[in-house]
Amino acid sequence: MKAFSDPLVVFMPSGKRGHVAPGTTVLDAARHLGVDLDSVCGGRGICSKCQCIPAYGHFQKHGLTAAEDALSPVNAVERRYDEKRGLKPGRRLGCQARILSNIVIDVPPESQLHRQVVRKAAEARSVEMDPATRLFLVEVDAPDMHAPSGDFERLKSALAAQWDLPPATAPLPVLDRLQGALRKGKWQATVALHHGHAAEAPRLLDIWPGFFEGPLYGLAIDLGSTTIAAHLTDLSNGDVRASSGVMNPQIRFGEDLMSRVSFAMMNPGGAEAMTASVRDALDALARDIAAEAGVDPRAIVEVTLVCNPVMHHLLLGIDPVELGQAPFALAVSDALCLDAKELGLASINPAAQAYLLPLIAGHVGADAAAVVLSEGPERSEDLVLVVDVGTNAEIILGNRERVLACSSPTGPAFEGAQISSGQRAAPGAIERVRIDPATKEPRFRVIGCELWSDEEGFLEAVGPSGVTGICGSGIIEAVAEMRMAGLVDSSGLIGSAEQTGTARCRPEGRTHSYLLHDPGARGGPVISVNQADIRAIQLAKSALYAGARLLMDRMGVERVDRVVLAGAFGAHISPLHAMVLGMIPDVPLEKVRSAGNAAGTGARIALCSRAARRLIETTVRRIEKVETAVEPRFQEHFVAANALPHASDPFPELAGIVTLPSVDFNAGEGGRRRRRRG
Amino acid sequence: MKAFSDPLVVFMPSGKRGHVAPGTTVLDAARHLGVDLDSVCGGRGICSKCQCIPAYGHFQKHGLTAAEDALSPVNAVERRYDEKRGLKPGRRLGCQARILSNIVIDVPPESQLHRQVVRKAAEARSVEMDPATRLFLVEVDAPDMHAPSGDFERLKSALAAQWDLPPATAPLPVLDRLQGALRKGKWQATVALHHGHAAEAPRLLDIWPGFFEGPLYGLAIDLGSTTIAAHLTDLSNGDVRASSGVMNPQIRFGEDLMSRVSFAMMNPGGAEAMTASVRDALDALARDIAAEAGVDPRAIVEVTLVCNPVMHHLLLGIDPVELGQAPFALAVSDALCLDAKELGLASINPAAQAYLLPLIAGHVGADAAAVVLSEGPERSEDLVLVVDVGTNAEIILGNRERVLACSSPTGPAFEGAQISSGQRAAPGAIERVRIDPATKEPRFRVIGCELWSDEEGFLEAVGPSGVTGICGSGIIEAVAEMRMAGLVDSSGLIGSAEQTGTARCRPEGRTHSYLLHDPGARGGPVISVNQADIRAIQLAKSALYAGARLLMDRMGVERVDRVVLAGAFGAHISPLHAMVLGMIPDVPLEKVRSAGNAAGTGARIALCSRAARRLIETTVRRIEKVETAVEPRFQEHFVAANALPHASDPFPELAGIVTLPSVDFNAGEGGRRRRRRG
Repeated sequence: MKAFSDPLVVFMPSGKRGHVAPGTTVLDAARHLGVDLDSVCGGRGICSKCQCIPAYGHFQKHGLTAAEDALSPVNAVERRYDEKRGLKPGRRLGCQARILSNIVIDVPPESQLHRQVVRKAAEARSVEMDPATRLFLVEVDAPDMHAPSGDFERLKSALAAQWDLPPATAPLPVLDRLQGALRKGKWQATVALHHGHAAEAPRLLDIWPGFFEGPLYGLAIDLGSTTIAAHLTDLSNGDVRASSGVMNPQIRFGEDLMSRVSFAMMNPGGAEAMTASVRDALDALARDIAAEAGVDPRAIVEVTLVCNPVMHHLLLGIDPVELGQAPFALAVSDALCLDAKELGLASINPAAQAYLLPLIAGHVGADAAAVVLSEGPERSEDLVLVVDVGTNAEIILGNRERVLACSSPTGPAFEGAQISSGQRAAPGAIERVRIDPATKEPRFRVIGCELWSDEEGFLEAVGPSGVTGICGSGIIEAVAEMRMAGLVDSSGLIGSAEQTGTARCRPEGRTHSYLLHDPGARGGPVISVNQADIRAIQLAKSALYAGARLLMDRMGVERVDRVVLAGAFGAHISPLHAMVLGMIPDVPLEKVRSAGNAAGTGARIALCSRAARRLIETTVRRIEKVETAVEPRFQEHFVAANALPHASDPFPELAGIVTLPSVDFNAGEGGRRRRRRG
Repeated sequence: MKAFSDPLVVFMPSGKRGHVAPGTTVLDAARHLGVDLDSVCGGRGICSKCQCIPAYGHFQKHGLTAAEDALSPVNAVERRYDEKRGLKPGRRLGCQARILSNIVIDVPPESQLHRQVVRKAAEARSVEMDPATRLFLVEVDAPDMHAPSGDFERLKSALAAQWDLPPATAPLPVLDRLQGALRKGKWQATVALHHGHAAEAPRLLDIWPGFFEGPLYGLAIDLGSTTIAAHLTDLSNGDVRASSGVMNPQIRFGEDLMSRVSFAMMNPGGAEAMTASVRDALDALARDIAAEAGVDPRAIVEVTLVCNPVMHHLLLGIDPVELGQAPFALAVSDALCLDAKELGLASINPAAQAYLLPLIAGHVGADAAAVVLSEGPERSEDLVLVVDVGTNAEIILGNRERVLACSSPTGPAFEGAQISSGQRAAPGAIERVRIDPATKEPRFRVIGCELWSDEEGFLEAVGPSGVTGICGSGIIEAVAEMRMAGLVDSSGLIGSAEQTGTARCRPEGRTHSYLLHDPGARGGPVISVNQADIRAIQLAKSALYAGARLLMDRMGVERVDRVVLAGAFGAHISPLHAMVLGMIPDVPLEKVRSAGNAAGTGARIALCSRAARRLIETTVRRIEKVETAVEPRFQEHFVAANALPHASDPFPELAGIVTLPSVDFNAGEGGRRRRRRG
């Protein structure tokens, strides 16, 4: 028991307070009072993670006065640390500074082990750093011939005594390196310990002689049907150090998931070939992103993966054939934790652990689970529709009471694939489009350039490679703008030059296309939107809308309170244009939010927080799954949603914002038979 | 609650009894009463493991009369089983036969899940079958599109509901096969589940559609410095189906352990080369033994391994350099459970699990732990000395109160290596030797032949390959018999023909050799024992004796109550000859027992029983380790033990049994300078 005559210490920002015996270190006081003050070296004055800022003066709120000598003077350890590595003015090492009288201690964010990861959107879930893998400095007893035991056993004893950790297991190559590391570090070593589940034994992933500062890294991977995105994340603070993406090489086996399943069914060894190709791509991506960020691949000790069920099974080496037919049975649906090298990730730490988020249903994958983890519909007071746009769209509708989920086969059009001038989102791709309703002239912006195409210096700013194509968000805006400018009618037909009054509408076969960009003498591709592009976007948006509508039917609602647009390119979809297209149900425009790559964010959250893993593992069990493939209502909604925007939904919310010309270009053959013009 | 008016059932041989509701199956009654009645199919009338024998009549001891109709009549399931697979007369399937009135049920040994494995020696530990891996038949729910879950998750639910098992994990290749197996078996499958520790998750090693009868097999491997022995063991009853042995291919890197450690230190990649060679040998041995026994390698799902610390580390791929110098620090000493394929065992079930027994100290390995497991010194009322003879001898001294252990570097002489005519124990090797004290003529037996060499028909019985060499037990007997026949003096010197009176003692360089066997015109090797052989045996026996003596010093005793001789060839060492040589301390001859390959037996026990694994894991912690390499007393004992038998121990127990001629062949150069003759 501490006496009231003992010094009172108040920790900020938590406000936790208590009396401690005079001479107690700030770190010990923090531990005693349950204050979140980081330490890797366990108080040996090595790691500097426990830095804190003493505050002196009178504190009205806390009713105490802190004298300048309330802490012990800066000692030799702190001076040496300051000389060698630098300590910001006013800062002390919590493990060295001793509390002598009443004091207020500020714990800066970077000294908090479980610090909050700041997230921008108010609705988004906040995350507390609690990664599965952490560094621990330990001092291990030297071997005693007369009381023999293994170096590993003595390491385990040290981890128990110094860090209160249960006995760990270790891969053979780490056991092989153990003896050298301990001797080189003079029986002091830093270990990377993976402890995914409290109920399971921790696993010793790596060991360094003496003090290894880190940081350790994790890779959050969003493995899509078309693209693979990875985020290299600092496991000490959740910061993204680098992001990178590649095309999914499985595209050569089939553009969409069902054609890949067919490929597996029709070709002996087909599934194995697809497994090998995606594993190779992941490994190359990991290698590249480490090189790009200048990070030692050995420091990458964790991977989290989100993907749809077909990609999930192919990645694991499980034949996806059952996913191609009702009842779309998954081989395994729970979250999995396994050695990353089992998934072909050979270039990162050889003992790195991979965590795959749970699948929700045969067509609703770990990517949807990751979106749920990121957006938290199960905690929402109002009814939120979350749409993750990709080659397959994951659609989630819910609130505190109830969460429904389905997936809808939108095809790759929203990702710029199967579009005549389409390309993946990369520098040179058109991502924003505006068309003047009067002149029918377009202007646009391309990725990698701040200027609009009608601004001065645009061509120079774009550079010599020029405008290369149109990406997913670009084609969505282009089609919506064409509709608003009267270049396309509500059935999706592009009018002729005569019908629209612009020479940019040019015959292409028996239909028309609209010229967005002609590089002329500069060379490069001519970029236009043709009738097939419009049809592809119509199919995609109808599928998306029908899925959302199906969930609303199941929920028994006619309207949702808000919409979250997510996707690999989710941040770039304009809510207005999505509504003009009829991608999403009618909702006040200010209630539509872009969440960016929510699946990737979910993967990052799972990387940073074990609690988040436990949360999504339990949440997915509560989600009601709707199988679009066998729902007759899905087909009905799909057909009804073909118009721009579709007839079944009058979209009153758009009325005050945009005017949709009531044109009709029913052109018959070659666009010659005109019936009506608005 | 069952009423007393309900039928009374008495199970034999356990005598467990109780009242059960009329119509209860015998299997359910057994489970209810805690009777050990096996079942793989869970009562579906498929596996026949629950066979039992109803007994009718009056049972005085049990005070009941069992009528012929006390069980329900044989039903269709039993008739079909009898027709298809045959049921012994009088036997019933416990899952089909229902108890209608008072009855006595005999459970035959083969229907007991935890049946005792019978062991011959009275002192030896009895073992109850409780293997880590067992088969379970399960019925899995078919997938439901509207309540989607993975096939694996439904399998786990079935294992929980039908077998009360906690959630399992599964390797990726098994997950890949899961869906096919479940569909082929119409949602019925047999799984091999490894559940080594109650606290850990079981692991799904394999799956078969429908009912798979088994049995599953395990390999108990004794990995010695010189030889590797494996026993293919039926995991349902502990029976050894086949045994096989090969030379350890690491011999080419060094005959003894220390030369292998040196090889690792002196040659970059040397440890890796030794690791690869022993893993290859293990895999080939596993493949061969499966082929020899006609067993599907996939049915081999477990491996237990015992070996000394250097072999242990080399097998695991851990550089053994620390074991070559004080303080002889082990990298890891606890028992290990890992995937057998990590140890190169690629030819057995790909998910097979390997269990390595714990190490005791830097020089006292898992082989010694296995000897302890087999011989149970820690349970002995009297003081027992257990000597495991090999290239390194493991020596254990103890009783209920206290157990000490050390190892002693005997070299390979006891295994027939480094002996002029030496060979490994194999057909053609001399294993028994007798020398007539009067005529000095030898007679012998060779492995693979029942006749002694002086019996009629011996040469024909030995066959064309003839007598090929002398093995470990043969050289021990030869030297002891030479001593008893006065051919060798107490200093170990072989006398000349003149000194000994037999022309079989022939000059060989500056010393003499004794001719054991001359094939003459038949061809083949001349087999003799030369002075260097005697010296090698003297060194080996001195090391062995000194180790035992050291433990006795530490224990503070001058005598032991009994001696157990173990070793790869332990069963073949004659206790009398071992005492004549002075290999072991003096003890009444009837108190010396050969335990055979106790290390191998320990490995088999660990294969059959999880409880035995837990037992040895705790027992090794209690053992006091003595490091011979740094004990000055060891050197003293070693030097003093050089004579045959050594002067320090008068061996009174031998006095009434053998006469040791007091000869002295101090022969000087070339055997010419004789000083005294007995």
